[in-house]
Amino acid sequence: MTESLKVGVAGLGTVGAALIAQIVRERAMLAERCGRGIEVVAVCARARNKDRGVDLRKMKWFDDPIALAMAPGIDVFVELMGGAGNPAKAAVEAALASGKAVVTANKALLAKHGVRLAALAEKHKVALNFEAAVAGAIPIVRTVREEFAGNTIERIYGILNGTCNYILTRMEQEGLAFDECLKDAQRLGYAEADPSFDIEGHDTAQKLAILSSLAFGTKVDESAIYVEGISSIQPADIAAADELGYRVKLLGVAVRTAKGVEQRVHPTMVRKDSAIAQVMGVTNAVTIDPRGINPITLIGPGAGGMATAASVLSDVADVARGMRLPPFGRPVARLNGTSKAPMQRHEGGYYIRLLARDKPGTAAAIATRLAEQEISLESIVQRHPKGASEAETKSGAVPVILITYATTEDAVRKALAAVGRDRVISGRPQVIRIEKN
Amino acid sequence: MTESLKVGVAGLGTVGAALIAQIVRERAMLAERCGRGIEVVAVCARARNKDRGVDLRKMKWFDDPIALAMAPGIDVFVELMGGAGNPAKAAVEAALASGKAVVTANKALLAKHGVRLAALAEKHKVALNFEAAVAGAIPIVRTVREEFAGNTIERIYGILNGTCNYILTRMEQEGLAFDECLKDAQRLGYAEADPSFDIEGHDTAQKLAILSSLAFGTKVDESAIYVEGISSIQPADIAAADELGYRVKLLGVAVRTAKGVEQRVHPTMVRKDSAIAQVMGVTNAVTIDPRGINPITLIGPGAGGMATAASVLSDVADVARGMRLPPFGRPVARLNGTSKAPMQRHEGGYYIRLLARDKPGTAAAIATRLAEQEISLESIVQRHPKGASEAETKSGAVPVILITYATTEDAVRKALAAVGRDRVISGRPQVIRIEKN
Repeated sequence: MTESLKVGVAGLGTVGAALIAQIVRERAMLAERCGRGIEVVAVCARARNKDRGVDLRKMKWFDDPIALAMAPGIDVFVELMGGAGNPAKAAVEAALASGKAVVTANKALLAKHGVRLAALAEKHKVALNFEAAVAGAIPIVRTVREEFAGNTIERIYGILNGTCNYILTRMEQEGLAFDECLKDAQRLGYAEADPSFDIEGHDTAQKLAILSSLAFGTKVDESAIYVEGISSIQPADIAAADELGYRVKLLGVAVRTAKGVEQRVHPTMVRKDSAIAQVMGVTNAVTIDPRGINPITLIGPGAGGMATAASVLSDVADVARGMRLPPFGRPVARLNGTSKAPMQRHEGGYYIRLLARDKPGTAAAIATRLAEQEISLESIVQRHPKGASEAETKSGAVPVILITYATTEDAVRKALAAVGRDRVISGRPQVIRIEKN
Repeated sequence: MTESLKVGVAGLGTVGAALIAQIVRERAMLAERCGRGIEVVAVCARARNKDRGVDLRKMKWFDDPIALAMAPGIDVFVELMGGAGNPAKAAVEAALASGKAVVTANKALLAKHGVRLAALAEKHKVALNFEAAVAGAIPIVRTVREEFAGNTIERIYGILNGTCNYILTRMEQEGLAFDECLKDAQRLGYAEADPSFDIEGHDTAQKLAILSSLAFGTKVDESAIYVEGISSIQPADIAAADELGYRVKLLGVAVRTAKGVEQRVHPTMVRKDSAIAQVMGVTNAVTIDPRGINPITLIGPGAGGMATAASVLSDVADVARGMRLPPFGRPVARLNGTSKAPMQRHEGGYYIRLLARDKPGTAAAIATRLAEQEISLESIVQRHPKGASEAETKSGAVPVILITYATTEDAVRKALAAVGRDRVISGRPQVIRIEKN
């Protein structure tokens, strides 16, 4: 049997501790499955004297992650510190430059510096693996890299943020308001004290940037993504969606179009009978639409110490077996630049909720403005929906829900601007894009 | 760039033709993703002059698959002939013995001879890949081999046969009888003229045998599996399941128990809110329960030329990249024997449907017999369920549906035997196991 693989772990939070415990507990199976042993020989964290529930006495301690990354006798550097900047970035660079494989769960680092790091890994002929950076324990990175090696992907989309899905699930199942669900999520540890990174869609965008690159061979680039969060979603939208056969999910979507790859993160109406609509609570899911084949959906835990550690460990195991694939599926020189697809060009169906003033001719005025933009309607609901706010009920205004057939964002925005000028509605129209399954 | 990988394909049905077309169409992407080209240089099939929609003129033709398997200049032998016997078996053996990698979609061959073939591959240090043999385009083989390298699997179960799931879906959604749905499945090409291999659970069992081996390190052994098909399922069962919050699915289940790995294929009640319960029609799905982590579910097309070809091609791509893992995840010497787990020992909840004679004391008599076996009831429904047959309605007998808490198969069988001796029911009781999610 080959000599065992020597691992250095930087960052000993819940994931790092779970990883070390897992490597000890599953020692025998790992050796069987990888053809060699795996052992953690060195670690690094901020506080040395902290009980993490794992025995670190046989491991060399480093105060400086960069020193660990370059230490002789380490084959793989596992980066679990997080953050797009230093020390994570410098440590990963140092490890790659020293010819060590790197395994990381750091989506922010990859979304920002992924291309440069992949080039460095390529130059030094070492692996850069990051299964845990997207959708926790769901094996989506290896599925795209390996299962779709010879199969063009038309679209990839997913529920990539457990916090948002938890909030939307509670809103739907209990008819609660956004703020209330967010508070519960914070209390349960599903949301940060400053929740904006999650609820405004940025966490999803970082993960989508990585998925897009893997699926379409674009250079990973978070800034090319249109991002819209879920804080504007109201119980009335969720109730109306329910009546019309939809659920509201925050999706990250990357789709091949005639004009290039469109990448976007926004609240989305998905049909209730789709696999992705069934995904509730903090669970994550990713659907791949390959050319000529029905979709493939992967569902599982998107976060948590053990779930993340499992994916990290699978990446370490790949290194132990000598597997080394291009980090983003293709050589860096073959990755294409991508530009932010202007959302005005987006084509699809739309959900529109308006508060129409209750006077004769209002419906006709709205319909006329939509028709001027050649927007066809799949359905129009004027009856009072469940979940309307008290203010809405008292205002005397009538909620109108429109579902359009495929049109463009530009047409919808122009039509709604004209409706606004007509002064037949109160407040701002709510617009939610529909994603076909 | 390394020299291109030379592929020989034996079997030119829908999968073989789709594979060849795919390799031509995706030539550029394959080269980028694999670091070398992939080309089909030789083929073999029964009829030479048949239009398969692909250009075979540049490929060498073989009438004999064994000659193709041993031909110099071939790096990978792709076996798409099917069948557990010759010529598939002899050809795969010849290819492995000649030091060629083998990719096959042949579940029957692997279920019967998997251990011997894996040993041969190991001896000659070549890959034996079979992603397409289980659940078509769903990347379940690589997920278990790679993502779960260091993560103990407690249970793996799935909908592995599209024909059965199509029939059960139609029965549920349209309230139709089994025979009628089977006829439709045959008419639509989802079921064979002799459907028994599918509907009696044997197809599912072959796939489960492979999954069990990958997940638990047992020697693949179809004969160790308890198998029961779906032909006894009646609309009354599906209607009762629906009322009680369940769906009926044919599952293949392999679970780690204190007494070893229990492998079984049978109609199963699954909770409607589980991911697997959402899987409708010919779609397949597999759920993995890892130790300490929430389940991971993979959903996708389980059959079809292009879907199967995609998985075959992903296996060929792995060979092109020089990846070689032990076929069943561990060296053959480490695979453990498995014995057929006696179903009497099976523990779980049960659905029982009886036709009770409508006379005083019947319910008490039934309850007493269950209590004697220490079986506790989660629910008991005596009202007339939807979907009862006309015969049932006319007989004056009252359908009684029982849902038990976890008990043993032995206890259930003994209790029902006693109920039978009491002469308080007519006909045979229907018993369906409940699988927890």
